[in-house]
Amino acid sequence: MKETQRLAEWLVAHRSEEIPERIVHEAKRALLNYIAAALSGCRHEAVDIAVKTVLPLSGPPTASLIGRAEKLDPLHATFINGISSHVDDFDDTLPKNYIHATSAVASALCAYASAAPVAGRDFLQAFVLGFEVTSRVGNAVTPWHYDAGWHITSTASVFGAAAAIGKLRALPVDNLVWALGNAATQAAGVRETFGSMAKAMHPGRAGQNGYFSVLLAENGFTGSEAPIEGARGFAFVQSSGRDLSRLFDKLGERYELLDNTYKPFPTGIVIQPTIDACIQIHREHRPDPAAIMAVDVEVAPIVFELCMKKDLKVGLEGKFSIYHAAAIGLVRGRASLDEFTDAVLEDATLARIRDLTRPHKIETIRADEAFVRVTLKDGTELTRHVEHALGNLERPMSDRDLEDKLRDLAGRVVGPVGAERIIDRCWRLDRLADCRDLIEATRP
Amino acid sequence: MKETQRLAEWLVAHRSEEIPERIVHEAKRALLNYIAAALSGCRHEAVDIAVKTVLPLSGPPTASLIGRAEKLDPLHATFINGISSHVDDFDDTLPKNYIHATSAVASALCAYASAAPVAGRDFLQAFVLGFEVTSRVGNAVTPWHYDAGWHITSTASVFGAAAAIGKLRALPVDNLVWALGNAATQAAGVRETFGSMAKAMHPGRAGQNGYFSVLLAENGFTGSEAPIEGARGFAFVQSSGRDLSRLFDKLGERYELLDNTYKPFPTGIVIQPTIDACIQIHREHRPDPAAIMAVDVEVAPIVFELCMKKDLKVGLEGKFSIYHAAAIGLVRGRASLDEFTDAVLEDATLARIRDLTRPHKIETIRADEAFVRVTLKDGTELTRHVEHALGNLERPMSDRDLEDKLRDLAGRVVGPVGAERIIDRCWRLDRLADCRDLIEATRP
Repeated sequence: MKETQRLAEWLVAHRSEEIPERIVHEAKRALLNYIAAALSGCRHEAVDIAVKTVLPLSGPPTASLIGRAEKLDPLHATFINGISSHVDDFDDTLPKNYIHATSAVASALCAYASAAPVAGRDFLQAFVLGFEVTSRVGNAVTPWHYDAGWHITSTASVFGAAAAIGKLRALPVDNLVWALGNAATQAAGVRETFGSMAKAMHPGRAGQNGYFSVLLAENGFTGSEAPIEGARGFAFVQSSGRDLSRLFDKLGERYELLDNTYKPFPTGIVIQPTIDACIQIHREHRPDPAAIMAVDVEVAPIVFELCMKKDLKVGLEGKFSIYHAAAIGLVRGRASLDEFTDAVLEDATLARIRDLTRPHKIETIRADEAFVRVTLKDGTELTRHVEHALGNLERPMSDRDLEDKLRDLAGRVVGPVGAERIIDRCWRLDRLADCRDLIEATRP
Repeated sequence: MKETQRLAEWLVAHRSEEIPERIVHEAKRALLNYIAAALSGCRHEAVDIAVKTVLPLSGPPTASLIGRAEKLDPLHATFINGISSHVDDFDDTLPKNYIHATSAVASALCAYASAAPVAGRDFLQAFVLGFEVTSRVGNAVTPWHYDAGWHITSTASVFGAAAAIGKLRALPVDNLVWALGNAATQAAGVRETFGSMAKAMHPGRAGQNGYFSVLLAENGFTGSEAPIEGARGFAFVQSSGRDLSRLFDKLGERYELLDNTYKPFPTGIVIQPTIDACIQIHREHRPDPAAIMAVDVEVAPIVFELCMKKDLKVGLEGKFSIYHAAAIGLVRGRASLDEFTDAVLEDATLARIRDLTRPHKIETIRADEAFVRVTLKDGTELTRHVEHALGNLERPMSDRDLEDKLRDLAGRVVGPVGAERIIDRCWRLDRLADCRDLIEATRP
């Protein structure tokens, strides 16, 4: 009983010294990946439109945006950061509950900390707690909630953003319960949006609403006292099933960040093992593209549901094309944003390999697995079996992989020197006296 | 199929000349009642806190608030208007689906029209359409949605606000579908909030989010194309049942405003028939309070669930007290806000009548019905049977009743002359060249 109260008490009592060093490091990895994803997305049309829309509505522009020159009030900055970090589907993922848990929480925190001095240690603690609350609220309603059509990244994150900002604002328990209550009654976002810009709005709005809920509650705006566990609360109204004990399972002993994963490529998740395998073949054998006669790819059935685009009309469609996945991996040995521009469609070599590629649906292959066989003109066969795609929990991206991802994405916005500056400040985040050193480094 | 598209096409094609005169008049009544409710609530602590919270975040203060001197950007003004109009539970009600359908739509429209010139006729049309969409979306998921714990006033209104502002902004069909999609994925608000300030936030946030959804869509921010009817859309994710045909049942022939009702008293709905009966006894017999020896009130069982507060500690508790209801009706012959202040608890005459009042639970009495018997010292019995409380569809408040309600509530903010000015401009709304004439008249 009184689960929200108990959660709030834990948050208020939490001391940053309690966070194990391994979790501090994982938090830095999540933030490095977050900034990379936001720098990838910050020039997306959806972000341009959103910025254009909110600029005339913004309050005093005290907050900075990740990767953009405009300034906005902190709530609108949260909104924009959230869109930037999610729109390219390049943010992190908790495989166990499908939540992209960093986007909303970090978007709110970066906006907040760009407008007021926040020490790196406090930022990291608030982030760890916000991530924790997002994921645990999600755990409590998994799988029922997502299966019903909710975009759990949106709904669960509003709690996490409230927890993170509430911790930074040092709200007392009663006010923090109200903040979580004001957040809960704004938990929204459905999967029907997938394929439209509205999906990317979700972590932005969740971060903004969670943040705003704290400001209201801090001033005494009362909310429900049992917003998660009440009979008309989140876990009952928005989920057909629930296990509230998961809110507290090893709370403070085992941190949810340990289950976080990062995507190496800006594509649909199910073609990542194919890209991975093809890049490995490229790196090991450097096959002459002209010598390639056939590409056979054995993949999980889900690939046939989601990623069978063959005749690409715009570059972005390549993100959901098993044919393009094989081609860029084999020919270019990489899958950066350059491989999904419209210009890439003019590359005749890639087009030829797409044509040669034959996907095979294999019932026994998992979604994070692929088997690739490349047949060359002389009859040579180059094969690769990826059991777990890079970025999975079983084969996580290394620190160096994450740095390279950031270098690729940040370089476009802040140049190579700027990218190194961001990387350096991410790793030193717990020692930064003012997080603005990091946030300002992301701006062009 | 394509219900949202069809709804958007109807909205875009709709011409104000199509609205029957009777509906124009009912819209004016709804707006008169809305302004009365907002003037009642605009000094509530929840509004003070909300204004204090958003003032430092507001964009350029181009919009006025109902009943308050501050100015804010139009989205924040929508938010505040929504709280003001709902916080005293004095706004209108659609008995068939429990929606308070005016608050969010009118809050958005008043904020919009305070910042830009809008002709009264256009305002009225946008209001009628917004009300229509809110109610019809609600109809489509009634009773399942509310029964599950959703505050339907919050969830359905975000569609109506988007429709109203989208009409004023003259969005093309495609953009209006996106606006409704961006609104749909923000549909939130649960009944667990009841009893806290967060409940009053619902129409404010719904109006603000619907309004914002239009601005995004107008600039090209894409949303779901089937936000209501899609398999992962509102009517499926947020309701266990649905009848989408109700969206179009006699659409354009029969307007939802015909089913709207207004509350004469700022109390829980189920004690309104008792107040009504007691006021009638007071007006007809003017009994000397000192001569009253017993008050027997026969009421529906629901009164025993919701309104049995006897020992009042603060005046507001009187809104949910069958004892206080009888006392103020018999002694004062009215139930205005003055009857629910803390000062009223010092009235010994009222306290004595509360003590004498005996409620009786009668299974066969309806919620809008009451039977009151007052026994005087000399044995005389004064009785009154209210079959349908004033304000019900069967016994609607007259235009004069609504005017008196506004006079009572507006007088506190703008004085008696100001109240007459508001009343005059409400009735002339379709002939106002600029709605600011009405909105500015509500400010102190």
